[in-house]
Amino acid sequence: MVKHEDSIKGIPLIKPTTLLPSLPAAYYLDPNILEREYAAIWRTQWQYLMRLDTLKEPGAFKVFRIGDREIFIVLNEDREYRGFYNVCRHRGSVLCEADSGQFSGNIICPYHQWSYGLDGALIKMPRIDVVNAIEDLNLLPVALTTWGGNLYVNLDSKTSLSLESMMIPGPNVLDNWPLERLAVGHRTTFTLACNWKVFWENYLECYHCPAIHPELSQIVPLYQAGLSTANLDPDHPAEDRVAAHIESWTTTGRAIAPVFSTLTAAEQVVGHTFVEIYPNQYLVAHADYVRQVSLQPRSVTSTQVTAEWLFDPDFLSDPDADLSPAIDFGARVLDQDTRVCELNQRGLAASGRFQGHLTHLEQDLADFHDIYRNWMQINT
Amino acid sequence: MVKHEDSIKGIPLIKPTTLLPSLPAAYYLDPNILEREYAAIWRTQWQYLMRLDTLKEPGAFKVFRIGDREIFIVLNEDREYRGFYNVCRHRGSVLCEADSGQFSGNIICPYHQWSYGLDGALIKMPRIDVVNAIEDLNLLPVALTTWGGNLYVNLDSKTSLSLESMMIPGPNVLDNWPLERLAVGHRTTFTLACNWKVFWENYLECYHCPAIHPELSQIVPLYQAGLSTANLDPDHPAEDRVAAHIESWTTTGRAIAPVFSTLTAAEQVVGHTFVEIYPNQYLVAHADYVRQVSLQPRSVTSTQVTAEWLFDPDFLSDPDADLSPAIDFGARVLDQDTRVCELNQRGLAASGRFQGHLTHLEQDLADFHDIYRNWMQINT
Amino acid sequence: MVKHEDSIKGIPLIKPTTLLPSLPAAYYLDPNILEREYAAIWRTQWQYLMRLDTLKEPGAFKVFRIGDREIFIVLNEDREYRGFYNVCRHRGSVLCEADSGQFSGNIICPYHQWSYGLDGALIKMPRIDVVNAIEDLNLLPVALTTWGGNLYVNLDSKTSLSLESMMIPGPNVLDNWPLERLAVGHRTTFTLACNWKVFWENYLECYHCPAIHPELSQIVPLYQAGLSTANLDPDHPAEDRVAAHIESWTTTGRAIAPVFSTLTAAEQVVGHTFVEIYPNQYLVAHADYVRQVSLQPRSVTSTQVTAEWLFDPDFLSDPDADLSPAIDFGARVLDQDTRVCELNQRGLAASGRFQGHLTHLEQDLADFHDIYRNWMQINT
Repeated sequence: MVKHEDSIKGIPLIKPTTLLPSLPAAYYLDPNILEREYAAIWRTQWQYLMRLDTLKEPGAFKVFRIGDREIFIVLNEDREYRGFYNVCRHRGSVLCEADSGQFSGNIICPYHQWSYGLDGALIKMPRIDVVNAIEDLNLLPVALTTWGGNLYVNLDSKTSLSLESMMIPGPNVLDNWPLERLAVGHRTTFTLACNWKVFWENYLECYHCPAIHPELSQIVPLYQAGLSTANLDPDHPAEDRVAAHIESWTTTGRAIAPVFSTLTAAEQVVGHTFVEIYPNQYLVAHADYVRQVSLQPRSVTSTQVTAEWLFDPDFLSDPDADLSPAIDFGARVLDQDTRVCELNQRGLAASGRFQGHLTHLEQDLADFHDIYRNWMQINT
Repeated sequence: MVKHEDSIKGIPLIKPTTLLPSLPAAYYLDPNILEREYAAIWRTQWQYLMRLDTLKEPGAFKVFRIGDREIFIVLNEDREYRGFYNVCRHRGSVLCEADSGQFSGNIICPYHQWSYGLDGALIKMPRIDVVNAIEDLNLLPVALTTWGGNLYVNLDSKTSLSLESMMIPGPNVLDNWPLERLAVGHRTTFTLACNWKVFWENYLECYHCPAIHPELSQIVPLYQAGLSTANLDPDHPAEDRVAAHIESWTTTGRAIAPVFSTLTAAEQVVGHTFVEIYPNQYLVAHADYVRQVSLQPRSVTSTQVTAEWLFDPDFLSDPDADLSPAIDFGARVLDQDTRVCELNQRGLAASGRFQGHLTHLEQDLADFHDIYRNWMQINT
Repeated sequence: MVKHEDSIKGIPLIKPTTLLPSLPAAYYLDPNILEREYAAIWRTQWQYLMRLDTLKEPGAFKVFRIGDREIFIVLNEDREYRGFYNVCRHRGSVLCEADSGQFSGNIICPYHQWSYGLDGALIKMPRIDVVNAIEDLNLLPVALTTWGGNLYVNLDSKTSLSLESMMIPGPNVLDNWPLERLAVGHRTTFTLACNWKVFWENYLECYHCPAIHPELSQIVPLYQAGLSTANLDPDHPAEDRVAAHIESWTTTGRAIAPVFSTLTAAEQVVGHTFVEIYPNQYLVAHADYVRQVSLQPRSVTSTQVTAEWLFDPDFLSDPDADLSPAIDFGARVLDQDTRVCELNQRGLAASGRFQGHLTHLEQDLADFHDIYRNWMQINT
């Protein structure tokens, strides 16, 4: 029996009676498990693609790599989004050669010029008039849905899942934010040398915050105590909110844009409101801007992450607007997280058969692992 | 039921009643299938190596990578070609360190100096006089054969296959071309980011020609209609030949070298005569030169291709000879094919379980796939 | 039946009656076999890490990659070495981010600041006072032992193997060398494009010496005859020692440092005394210095090698000491070996199913293969 001293004077220690097992190291290292994840998760779940205002004109398209697949999104004549595998039904050429662009009229395969309408129907095979079974040669569709000005895809075109049912803690948490009206003020994409679950696990706890995120821990007293939410330690004096003098997550602690007028006083005071949409997006809504982060596995040991900073378009059109206090703050936190995610990944490989432990401060990881185990139908 | 409009006015549409299935996408993506192909095809079939005049002196050698193996060819004392695995029978060192060179006398292993005659017989093991079983330590031979001034290898040294039996449409098609006399005027080697079968499939149809090869389609009216041979559409008015004013496949349409005097009038007029020798070579014989293209898989998604332009040596020795109209024309067509082959490969990966369709215009692909299925003993 | 001529006049030929089989090529090429070797050999056998004087102060650490694992060595408060997997027991982060450095006090995980004593005991989990089962969260230890001033690791912390039992020809061969007193005068680390067993096989015979190591063969007459030891050919006139006028393995043939005074006359005269400690180290002790070489597989076709030249520290502190005749000589031999090891590896891949042959001059390889077969529990 060991009795610990705590480095933060005056704060009582938490006394868990049980440590929960993390996932075995193979789940972060074995390419065969990533293959199983592609099938069980990345081809069955909703995933964020882009803001709805990204494409403007009928025929405009954009290509995305989702798990180990490749799709494209196109605006049809009614300016509605349609999504298809980037595959011609003839011999399988990609239809979109560039990552984004504009079809003039139909979708025409660059190889043999088979033509498809913007809704995916095969319209013409040059030189050939096929009488039968033409319906079977339409483009392979994916399911699309929208929420909060975002476009989401599900590779299972017949999915019965609703996006809202996957939102944690729930679909109405950000109702008072004018999400649909916001525009991207800054976007960054980078690749981490870690499994995609390591990135989530790091996001889901603040036990690492005091040492890894000094600036963030200064803004949020609860984080300084290693707590991501107040309910992890009811005895702790700090509330689940930013410090009294802090307005937003910025390098100055001040809001850089007008505070959203539709927020309640409580929503303004808390300073940060989170929504997770597993497996590939989370949103952090502040009083003056919203940051949303999405990810895709690129190999069992690498993950591509995109972060977007969303602002009111009126603010963005102000020539004096300075976004850097918000961008620099978030980018620094992401840099700090990248370092420890990569240290965690490297250590998982070091002992081969390692299985870690979760403390009570990491309850959200345990919940995430339960969702993951359920997707993968495993018990480890 | 959909009735198509055709973009080429006045040409009747073809009405296939059935589309044939292409190969499943895994056959272009799965490294395990390439392993099976190495065993079932690349270690059992004849493959082009080089022109017979490449090596001149006894002891001259050249190394080749055939499928996943490595061999060398050497001229013996009678200036006959011999071929062996590039492996010393002792502990397995390569015998040829450089890709080409000259043995002075025997083949001597660079590691322990075991010596072999130019016919592969073990002659000496330094310091050792082995009395028994010396026959078992001769070099591992490969089978060689020649045709048309070309040298071919079969890794199965006991093969009973004849090269001629694998020639499509047949072994005598190029009898009137002085193939043995010709010399290489230009050679280019490059690697495409596609499976080797994608390269063949592209070669085997001209359905892509109108859009991808405008210069070639201008020279061959049938290609402008997407037809590789006239028998794909007996109703089509164009004959299986170059346009009336065209002499050869060059940027000018004119022959750049004297027309081969041994050709029949019909052979001159047609402008191009094809022979395929699966899995690794095709020849296109024109009135004034011959182009031969060979390939080797380097991975399941990459293929190394070598193209050679063969001319009469008297023409090549003419200081005023200008080969560029023939070289530029062929290189441009290969560049155009490279682009669409790589688009096709990328698209095959996009949907994972894709299986394409072949139209009646792609009958030669269906025939190739049947040969392939027979080699691989599959039914998919 | 073939009767060989020998290139070395006057030396009788050896007449083996049997050639022994080498290992099949797959053992040098198949990543799955390397995985089995990691488990059967690299996680069960003692392996050299570094000289004992490498770390000086309590808390100093150094990271090593052993097989497919990663460990670190640390000096505890009593300046005793301890070794652990580089893995925090919490969620698996590495504990040592840099390859070497200094802990100030405890071992603190860079991720969540879990603290461990220099003997591996968990001391503190920030914010948490765990009452139960704390013993289970100590660092994962590895076994350490010392010999001759060297530190060795065994990943199996409960191994019952003794390092000395693995020394060939035996543990007392170098007793007269002041190994513990010596210091590293020069170190070089490089990676060869060959399987680790190819490197050992090359080391274990001198059949290649006349052609590959002309300088070394000039110093050791037996090597000029392709013999690594005199007992391979009792009829051979040369003794198992350097030539009469040679003092040490240097470019000049002269000792560059004072001859070790503790050596017997016979040990001085022989000029080289070998010890092998499979699977990862050999030592060559000369009259004035010792060279030790260690290795780690990095992939099935690449091996990392470190060579260290050990001298008396008094000699090293002499400002006029010139180590280059010893370093240059050894580095040249290693360069020559690198070339033929890589030729051997390349050739093993050339024919796919190759299995080589061992002559009587390669008896030590046969013995090594027997040890290897026993480790791997195979009969091939």
